[in-house]
Amino acid sequence: MLTRIDHVGIACHDLEEKIAFYESTFGLIVASREVNEEQGVKEAMLHVADGPAGSSYVQLLEPLHPDTPVGKFLAKRGEGVHHVGYGVDDVTAALEAIGAKGVRLLDERPRHGSMGASIAFLHPKDVGGVLTELVQARRLEH
Amino acid sequence: MLTRIDHVGIACHDLEEKIAFYESTFGLIVASREVNEEQGVKEAMLHVADGPAGSSYVQLLEPLHPDTPVGKFLAKRGEGVHHVGYGVDDVTAALEAIGAKGVRLLDERPRHGSMGASIAFLHPKDVGGVLTELVQARRLEH
Repeated sequence: MLTRIDHVGIACHDLEEKIAFYESTFGLIVASREVNEEQGVKEAMLHVADGPAGSSYVQLLEPLHPDTPVGKFLAKRGEGVHHVGYGVDDVTAALEAIGAKGVRLLDERPRHGSMGASIAFLHPKDVGGVLTELVQARRLEH
Repeated sequence: MLTRIDHVGIACHDLEEKIAFYESTFGLIVASREVNEEQGVKEAMLHVADGPAGSSYVQLLEPLHPDTPVGKFLAKRGEGVHHVGYGVDDVTAALEAIGAKGVRLLDERPRHGSMGASIAFLHPKDVGGVLTELVQARRLEH
């Protein structure tokens, strides 16, 4: 069902500073920057690798306000890994299959994620403390 | 420098239970099980995807004793993402380059990791709260 590690989502206080760090230290390159008002974050996707099922990224997340999920995470835990996103071919089918196993879905239906993807989150308490995201990448038009 | 997301390392209380969960819920398959006395863990690598630079895994980690790095992590933070491992072609060269940027190295020299890899950890305080591992996969003999 999972086709790749799509990204590791990392919460930070200062997006620009962390982008510069990942660029300078690890040679990563920014593939996309977005502001997602719905999720209350500004973010960047830094490209790590390409694979047969799609690419892998480091996603850096800075909260738009303290009273957002990432803002609350930072206040409680400090900077660090916020979630893990796995690629799937069909996020709707994956949600149905995973929900049928008894895992609570934070998103019953897919919503818009980074870079045009359709995404959904699973409840971390049902996935061993890991906030887990399913990512169906945007189909590129040829 | 980074060639892939090699693995996400997830700390758990009960390795067998979490293996069964990841197999059943996400269809992952165990590629390797090991006990690493040096790191004080028993662990499993669950295969997610193959790519040009190597494979990606979910690594599940159960501490052998409470007084180990993963045991202390669990006591403090509970189950969840413990570290992120990135693939590199040459871990010695990568350590040198990253150390030269001022990032503290938890391992000055590579040591033995899962599945015959040479690995080294970077100090999480210098990588935005993320315990970061560099992984040079074992070269397969042909």
